[in-house]
Amino acid sequence: MGSVARIHSVAQRVGKWFRAGHRLVVVPSAMSGETNRLIALAKEVSPDISSRELDVIASTGEQVAAGLLAAALQHQGIDAVSYTGWQVPLVTDSSHSKARIEHIDCTRVRRDLEQGRVVVIAGFQGVDAAQDVTTLGRGGSDTSAVALAAALRAHECLIFTDVDGVYTTDPRIVPAARRLKTIGVEAMLEMASLGSKVLLNRAVEFAGKHRVPLRVLSSFTPWDLPLAQERRGGTLITLQKEPTMEKPLISGIAFMREETKVTVRDLPDIPGTASRILAAVAAADVEVDIIVQNVSHHGSTDLTFTVARQDGAAAHKALERELPALEASGLHCDATVSKVSVVGVGLRSHASVASRMFNCLARESINIQMISTSEIKTSVIIDEAQLDHAVRALHQAFGLASEGPDLLAEVH
Amino acid sequence: MGSVARIHSVAQRVGKWFRAGHRLVVVPSAMSGETNRLIALAKEVSPDISSRELDVIASTGEQVAAGLLAAALQHQGIDAVSYTGWQVPLVTDSSHSKARIEHIDCTRVRRDLEQGRVVVIAGFQGVDAAQDVTTLGRGGSDTSAVALAAALRAHECLIFTDVDGVYTTDPRIVPAARRLKTIGVEAMLEMASLGSKVLLNRAVEFAGKHRVPLRVLSSFTPWDLPLAQERRGGTLITLQKEPTMEKPLISGIAFMREETKVTVRDLPDIPGTASRILAAVAAADVEVDIIVQNVSHHGSTDLTFTVARQDGAAAHKALERELPALEASGLHCDATVSKVSVVGVGLRSHASVASRMFNCLARESINIQMISTSEIKTSVIIDEAQLDHAVRALHQAFGLASEGPDLLAEVH
Repeated sequence: MGSVARIHSVAQRVGKWFRAGHRLVVVPSAMSGETNRLIALAKEVSPDISSRELDVIASTGEQVAAGLLAAALQHQGIDAVSYTGWQVPLVTDSSHSKARIEHIDCTRVRRDLEQGRVVVIAGFQGVDAAQDVTTLGRGGSDTSAVALAAALRAHECLIFTDVDGVYTTDPRIVPAARRLKTIGVEAMLEMASLGSKVLLNRAVEFAGKHRVPLRVLSSFTPWDLPLAQERRGGTLITLQKEPTMEKPLISGIAFMREETKVTVRDLPDIPGTASRILAAVAAADVEVDIIVQNVSHHGSTDLTFTVARQDGAAAHKALERELPALEASGLHCDATVSKVSVVGVGLRSHASVASRMFNCLARESINIQMISTSEIKTSVIIDEAQLDHAVRALHQAFGLASEGPDLLAEVH
Repeated sequence: MGSVARIHSVAQRVGKWFRAGHRLVVVPSAMSGETNRLIALAKEVSPDISSRELDVIASTGEQVAAGLLAAALQHQGIDAVSYTGWQVPLVTDSSHSKARIEHIDCTRVRRDLEQGRVVVIAGFQGVDAAQDVTTLGRGGSDTSAVALAAALRAHECLIFTDVDGVYTTDPRIVPAARRLKTIGVEAMLEMASLGSKVLLNRAVEFAGKHRVPLRVLSSFTPWDLPLAQERRGGTLITLQKEPTMEKPLISGIAFMREETKVTVRDLPDIPGTASRILAAVAAADVEVDIIVQNVSHHGSTDLTFTVARQDGAAAHKALERELPALEASGLHCDATVSKVSVVGVGLRSHASVASRMFNCLARESINIQMISTSEIKTSVIIDEAQLDHAVRALHQAFGLASEGPDLLAEVH
């Protein structure tokens, strides 16, 4: 919610659903820019502010938004009430700024719903056993919403966001990219972890674990869109594990533009070397993505892995210290690579997907530097300069632009 | 606290007191302008916002300030912790936006103090029995501070404000006005109700009732002022009822510039008429100040009273409706009067104070339109154009500029 006008538009939309007979719990995030403003103010006062106090400050953005939304609903004549995280209470552990939800007591919320009220609950926040305010970290309001939907056994959790659903790939690169009507939880997790920014994995994982049907909708459609039409929009994140004839095997082409490839050269081929390297990197709080170790050659080997580019320097620094002990001949970082992935359910059992992917890239003269596969994705590392080209070619090769014939049949 | 620099200066001052060995609970109000910003935002969303939701929104200003101050103290290496009203908890009734404090559970605060922590508690707010956030209304942070001081049996409650104490009168009108070193609770209450804006009566009443010594200090003195010097500044609101030789009988000259005088003419002189008039005014939520009824003349009488000027129109409207039923001949409002008062302990038993006051005004050709006296003040209504002149003359006549000889002796 960016402005007073936006708050009223959200309230109108909520009112539309309410008047259609739905019982609603609404979880607003802070007004846009507010959380950043509060955190900047806190860091200005103390760059080393404790995460407990930062949570006290940052959580007020959602508290204000919840009060404002309840007021806007009341202004429409709807009986609405706002709650903060501690009022629900939504109980978390004590990991300030990245708290995990432990349980939610829905007594008060249920009583309000039974009395015909719309309940507005401040997202992003909770309270720990010591009665301290906690926040859930990035994307916390989505997680709050899914957790509340699970606790209340809601029929559906609608996430209104700034995109109108999950696409087969980034429409800025492939204009023909198509919105998926449905996507499985697992494929959604891969799409998200591979760079699709619709929803953070935490909310999707929560939805999958607690079997909450999740629907991603655009908050930019007119609020007075007929209900059925609004519900048809967006993407439903389904809980069925099996692909059905109605949906393609391949969900989309995901990518991470900014990767760094790190190579440690001429390692003695003895047990424990790789784990020592990875431990050193992990100790620097860097997450390793794809890992490839070449077969031994004259008793020595190269180990290559990729990390997010922002972590490249930290990984390099951590390994430089280890280099003498590792008896490696050198360390090389390449900050010009990207990762592109084909995501879909059951890929491992459909080897033809990988071969179709590699063929497509070869045809386009795009060199594959590393490969990694899993049950639901096949990823390759390529030159960053060729990324857009690769995404377009793969989107085309897998026929993702058209809903056309079911790809399951095509791939076999 | 107006800025990040101000927050650090407050933290430095708190640190100075802490390092001198004091155990401290600090109650910040919101950063300046923040409460007004939040209320304006809320009213923009809904002019008829419920007071419950307004409290949810408005209370965040103090919550942020408490978090920021705790962070600034931690940055100095002081172990500090912030609490909101509900975390203490500071329990109030459910009168949103003007809640009364019912009780304070100091368990958590005491434990922190015993562990050597500075405890920062968001002012202005509490929580009711239903676990809803409440606010205490105007001057609420002062009330929070006094109530916490009472509950913790604090040695003293220091109120840092934008003036450096209570003056014998407004220094903008009488440059020779002198800061009082001490003032009794009752005289302070009269000074406040008569226009001195140092502290609202609610906090002073609370201090008197719970016997909390209250010291008003300036927040604009340099934070690194030596402790003894800082404590000598300001005004101590004492709990002793008896004037001592060390302090003058007369505390000061207070005034209310904007008063309106309302006269109802030719009322039939029968019982119940005055109460009917005052009931009509009270029903319009207008507080009546001074009331004078002339002696009956040919079976009819005039009733005159004053109200704050902002309430003049409401009082007039309320009485216009009643006029036919009252059988009065007319209604007259005069919005050009002011009230000036001499405040001090034991005035009623010292008739000479009133006579000295009236003599002084007569000497200056200032006409007295109405008179009202109480145990600790004598007030007169005069023409607004003569107010500054009257204040200066009275300040001079009662010798308030110099601490000189004790006025008690002088007046007898």
